[in-house]
Amino acid sequence: MSRPRIDASHDPALRSWVEGAQDHAQFPIQNLPYGVFAPPGEAARAGAAIGDCILDLRAAAAAGALPADAVPALRGDSLNELFALAPAARAALRLALSRLLSDEACAAAARPWLHRADDCALQLPMRIGDYTDFYAGIHHAENVGRLFRPDRPLLANYKHLPIGYHGRASSVRASGAPVRRPHGQWLAAADAEPEFGPSRRLDFELELGVWIGRGNRLGEPVPIAEAHAHIAGLCLLNDWSARDLQAWEYQPLGPFLGKSFLTTVSPWVVTAEALAPFAVAAPARPAGDPAPLPYLDDPGDRSHGGYAIELEVALRTARMRRDDAPAQTLTRTAAARLYWTAAQMIAHHTSNGCNLQPGDLLGSGTVSGPGEDECGSLLERSRGGRQPLTLANGELRSFLEDGDEVSLNATARAPGYVPIGFGECRGRVVTDSDKA
Amino acid sequence: MSRPRIDASHDPALRSWVEGAQDHAQFPIQNLPYGVFAPPGEAARAGAAIGDCILDLRAAAAAGALPADAVPALRGDSLNELFALAPAARAALRLALSRLLSDEACAAAARPWLHRADDCALQLPMRIGDYTDFYAGIHHAENVGRLFRPDRPLLANYKHLPIGYHGRASSVRASGAPVRRPHGQWLAAADAEPEFGPSRRLDFELELGVWIGRGNRLGEPVPIAEAHAHIAGLCLLNDWSARDLQAWEYQPLGPFLGKSFLTTVSPWVVTAEALAPFAVAAPARPAGDPAPLPYLDDPGDRSHGGYAIELEVALRTARMRRDDAPAQTLTRTAAARLYWTAAQMIAHHTSNGCNLQPGDLLGSGTVSGPGEDECGSLLERSRGGRQPLTLANGELRSFLEDGDEVSLNATARAPGYVPIGFGECRGRVVTDSDKA
Repeated sequence: MSRPRIDASHDPALRSWVEGAQDHAQFPIQNLPYGVFAPPGEAARAGAAIGDCILDLRAAAAAGALPADAVPALRGDSLNELFALAPAARAALRLALSRLLSDEACAAAARPWLHRADDCALQLPMRIGDYTDFYAGIHHAENVGRLFRPDRPLLANYKHLPIGYHGRASSVRASGAPVRRPHGQWLAAADAEPEFGPSRRLDFELELGVWIGRGNRLGEPVPIAEAHAHIAGLCLLNDWSARDLQAWEYQPLGPFLGKSFLTTVSPWVVTAEALAPFAVAAPARPAGDPAPLPYLDDPGDRSHGGYAIELEVALRTARMRRDDAPAQTLTRTAAARLYWTAAQMIAHHTSNGCNLQPGDLLGSGTVSGPGEDECGSLLERSRGGRQPLTLANGELRSFLEDGDEVSLNATARAPGYVPIGFGECRGRVVTDSDKA
Repeated sequence: MSRPRIDASHDPALRSWVEGAQDHAQFPIQNLPYGVFAPPGEAARAGAAIGDCILDLRAAAAAGALPADAVPALRGDSLNELFALAPAARAALRLALSRLLSDEACAAAARPWLHRADDCALQLPMRIGDYTDFYAGIHHAENVGRLFRPDRPLLANYKHLPIGYHGRASSVRASGAPVRRPHGQWLAAADAEPEFGPSRRLDFELELGVWIGRGNRLGEPVPIAEAHAHIAGLCLLNDWSARDLQAWEYQPLGPFLGKSFLTTVSPWVVTAEALAPFAVAAPARPAGDPAPLPYLDDPGDRSHGGYAIELEVALRTARMRRDDAPAQTLTRTAAARLYWTAAQMIAHHTSNGCNLQPGDLLGSGTVSGPGEDECGSLLERSRGGRQPLTLANGELRSFLEDGDEVSLNATARAPGYVPIGFGECRGRVVTDSDKA
């Protein structure tokens, strides 16, 4: 069993000497996500979020405050080496950080390594090798399938394997990157000639991202019972989608330019260690569903890598900003809605011998639930654009308009533990004139 | 117009002082492809192929024999920086190499930088960021489409845009890498339950690869008239495919594990500069075909990046090796069979703002022609496995058997110029016991 264990770093009574960290909605001391940040005017380096601050891990390591075997992995400007460490080394680093930030005796030494997060620029945490996007949200697959095949929304393969496709790694960006409306080809009607221009059906997709820590060698599949040892941690992921481009291009080889213009992730890696208390058994499969084939089934771990994580999507339009109105929550759903877990995705992905590498990114696929308020995309909410959503201020939305800002949020919760957040995954649709 | 020009390095009268380089079928002095090689017991570095030898570019640069602005780009163990150089710097490097290897006066100084190619290990020439596979072989698309839709083999989008999908970068390997038969899920019959095991329908795909040199920034499409400046060069690419895995998994998001277990490329980058004499006008589109939309059409360059390159596939089975029989050529076709060119692929790929990076790899898609001897895959040749091919020695092949070795070959030819080759793109199917 390769899943990280619950240890002293998860103790709900643990308190940090960092001001404002106590009861912090996102980054209490029980979280300690890792990221890459640049203090004002300085080079990027590894950090850990604590309350509204970031601890400079490179500075702490250089001062000898962290375990020696983590020090070389903290020298660069990405976390690939850090997450490639063996599980024991990662667990030891987390415990050392937890002590450093909770023990008052360490405060004087460690305070100079803290930066106010608001002053810093957050970057992608990893050099991404490959990015793979799955389709594990069964309600999304049903909602979208119903638009095309009302009588048979799910294809025959869906419940037998975690459907996935290769995504574009070069256009993954950290939260805050502008969303430039892509140009592309689309077909206005079945008998028309295709047109080329700015997408008219720009959408978001609410996903969880899985960062890969340790890799596997080409030709050597990862058994599902060992899949956890390859998970660095999770993030939020917005798989921005141009539905008109996608609809015209996707047959027979799948999504391409409808997706590859941008993917946004939250910049903090919420580690597999931090998530240990939030592992939950995967929901029982509905009666009549096929049992997973043995390579996708781990009798020793009924969770298969499932987590109790609440998910939200909020929209703030240009008019809301002008009116000083807050963002409107469009969607509330949960990771438990996914049909396939992270461990199953890893076992499937490598079952043909494909090699994962440290820093690879997996997307879960759009997370939706059965209810109207659980839609992980506007495509679903507006029924393919046919039933626009009326916002609280009277605005209508079938798809995203210029100026719209979408933010994804997540909180892991479990009885007896302090909830932990994922930080921001945000993007605003800019017009061509905004680009200049 | 960004296409490299024909210069003194293409002169058919040019002769090299390197023994055996004269009239070399692959690497005469008019070719000078770049690659990454490791001499016996030494570290990998950049090299140029000349005849049966490799010139150590790092050593030549360190000795001051190459232009100063190429020197920093030759320090590492990949060619990403070299091909990111501006076109003028790349052209100057080629001219300097051409002089170095043709001028007898340079022989004494340069001879120590030569290695016998047979003694060296060739590696991937680039650190691949993203790998994209196109579907530009219209005869392949028709042959495969006919298996599923006899009355309508091509989908409606095919002639309007170069269909492509994201491939797996981590499992691209240089020629010679073993082909491990992948395990995976497939459906034996429509009403059966899926099974999991070794693929029974392993296939090759004959493709040209396009290495990207200079990149573009996210959000800034490459106009087709500038697309040539982003091409580093070409290679051969075998997109090994497990047809049974692919058939079961590919809907609705495209190929995934049926492809991601291995992609093999020839290790030499035949540069855009070397290919200048072999540019040809793209074949006229058949009457009635739609004209390309303006972003895919370059009135200043009717070739759109098409080249006169002959392509071959040869198969050598275990029995042929036992009988000391040569490989059998299965396929003879040409790059001119492609419906879309490299420049059109680049313009389309970036039309939504997607950023290409130095070292990205594009596959052309399987190159096939209309004739039976022009099939770029066994799937086509055996009509979906229903009509096995009878080899000269009496063996039958619907798909690849263990021990089969597939090699792809290519030659660029044009009247008045010395033909140039691509070197080897080879892989042998190994059994599980071979792995140990």
